[in-house]
Amino acid sequence: MSAATTPLAPTSASVIPSLTDIQAAAARLAGTAHCTPVQTSSSLDALAGATLFFKCENFQKGGAYKFRGAYNALRALPTEQSARGVVTHSSGNHATCLALAARLLGVPAHIVLPRNAPRIKQRAVADYGGHITLCEPTLAARQAEANRIQAATGAAFIHPYDDPQVIAGQGTIALEMLEQVPHLDVLIAPVSGGGLLSGLCLAAHAIAPHVEVWGAEPALADDAFRSLQEGRVLPNLNPATIADGLRASLSERTFGILRQHARGIVTVTEEQILATMRLIWERMKLVVEPSGVVPLAGLLAHPEKFHGRRVGIIFTGGNVDLDRLPWQPAVDAR
Amino acid sequence: MSAATTPLAPTSASVIPSLTDIQAAAARLAGTAHCTPVQTSSSLDALAGATLFFKCENFQKGGAYKFRGAYNALRALPTEQSARGVVTHSSGNHATCLALAARLLGVPAHIVLPRNAPRIKQRAVADYGGHITLCEPTLAARQAEANRIQAATGAAFIHPYDDPQVIAGQGTIALEMLEQVPHLDVLIAPVSGGGLLSGLCLAAHAIAPHVEVWGAEPALADDAFRSLQEGRVLPNLNPATIADGLRASLSERTFGILRQHARGIVTVTEEQILATMRLIWERMKLVVEPSGVVPLAGLLAHPEKFHGRRVGIIFTGGNVDLDRLPWQPAVDAR
Repeated sequence: MSAATTPLAPTSASVIPSLTDIQAAAARLAGTAHCTPVQTSSSLDALAGATLFFKCENFQKGGAYKFRGAYNALRALPTEQSARGVVTHSSGNHATCLALAARLLGVPAHIVLPRNAPRIKQRAVADYGGHITLCEPTLAARQAEANRIQAATGAAFIHPYDDPQVIAGQGTIALEMLEQVPHLDVLIAPVSGGGLLSGLCLAAHAIAPHVEVWGAEPALADDAFRSLQEGRVLPNLNPATIADGLRASLSERTFGILRQHARGIVTVTEEQILATMRLIWERMKLVVEPSGVVPLAGLLAHPEKFHGRRVGIIFTGGNVDLDRLPWQPAVDAR
Repeated sequence: MSAATTPLAPTSASVIPSLTDIQAAAARLAGTAHCTPVQTSSSLDALAGATLFFKCENFQKGGAYKFRGAYNALRALPTEQSARGVVTHSSGNHATCLALAARLLGVPAHIVLPRNAPRIKQRAVADYGGHITLCEPTLAARQAEANRIQAATGAAFIHPYDDPQVIAGQGTIALEMLEQVPHLDVLIAPVSGGGLLSGLCLAAHAIAPHVEVWGAEPALADDAFRSLQEGRVLPNLNPATIADGLRASLSERTFGILRQHARGIVTVTEEQILATMRLIWERMKLVVEPSGVVPLAGLLAHPEKFHGRRVGIIFTGGNVDLDRLPWQPAVDAR
């Protein structure tokens, strides 16, 4: 799997992780990443008309599932390469989690963040010892800056989602969940660049092919929905959704995996995201970030697709700026 | 245990629940109350210099441990009495949880709430079908209003803490936790009227007498600390702490239990409560209300008492008004 270790060289979109790769990722993560608990809520079951199982990756190290992919990709690098450090660009949790993974493994991490990344995520990267460079919030600006740092330092680029080892790491969530919850009918997760959803698709297809894997995304960042409908990658153009972790677009690799294995994509409005986030905080007493509530919002917005079924939902992260919650009005003085 | 079933008749402070009463409560609660999970956090362990186990009663039915005592007391009533309904006064979670318990058992619930009870708690009582009467935020006003309702309806009064069956219900938390976590050295919980801490004391003393049981309370509502120091009940006088569930004062009964069994009381400032609440939300991704964070705040404020020990901490509830978090400035427009 050399594509995973030299990703800024032209990486073939045909390199797809196998079940063996996902199982190897699980072995690398064992004892370091948390096997996160699965929670249930009878009141949300009643609301949804389905039996829901919530995989709490908001409790994961670094506060998000992204730790799995980042740590796996870093440990899969040849030592001579990881010694020169790693670099990435990210809208947030991949950055935080790569910085944390690098610190745990004693490797320098260079993090390119868009200027509009939530303050809490910038602070978290700094707390984990990551070296931050801010850039304009476009994919082109991020990549140019990461290229510059890579050329200057020799650091290995770890893409937030278009990397077979990252996808394999995220796929370990499905291995765990299918063991924790018997007889699941459905898995549903947010889709942004598609790394998580690809990992879930590949793992579920390999070990429980009857499980339907669904993606959920904001209508304001519905590139996966449109791309799968049109049969080609149609990127988002700087989308303004409050789900700040879901602004990226599919790669050719993740598009190919989803086209083959995902059952479908449901989209939700910004209002549905806000209402669902508040519902989860109030009923489940869990801090889940806007991006992480999108699957439940999607299920509640499209109940006919999931009625009466046993549905596994990934709460992907809990990194929220507690100075102001998304449903609160902005205050000048802050 | 007739004192538990006719509590507005002069109730002898000498009626103390036994281990058998607590075990009977556990049997009544089984299958209805949640056996809440215990969570851990390596970063909070490092901060505290101790090994911490958090019993998540914020996940309990009704969002608080109070469900245990309320449901147990209601089920312990003779049927002819419960058929006429129940009445209580409460600063919040007991009210919510009694309303919920009454609804589950098909019994009317009359709830006297202080006017300054958080809006979310008023709404929750109404959502559970409780009949609300608002009153001035003093113990005298609450009791007068509850007496009036009791006289008019024949409802049974369920005291929020000065009731052996309520204390027995809260004590089930210790039974569970001592089974979930081997070799605990310490249990620490908030103390307001002392029902929870009394239940923990009695259960721990009966089955694990080596476990130290500590209380924690706001310095602004430090009646338990002062009472135990002076050797007599010294009530709070309308305290202004943000820990809105901790404004009540010990009864003769709970004072007697704590004097015999509690290892001590630690107090915390309002600033420590706020900082700890934010810490828990950010690090543990758990919604815990101000009253529920007081034990961890107490441990962090008095680390020398707990250093190197295995400490069980009760996160008592998660009912927070999400329109404005306690560390946020008030906004006129709201």
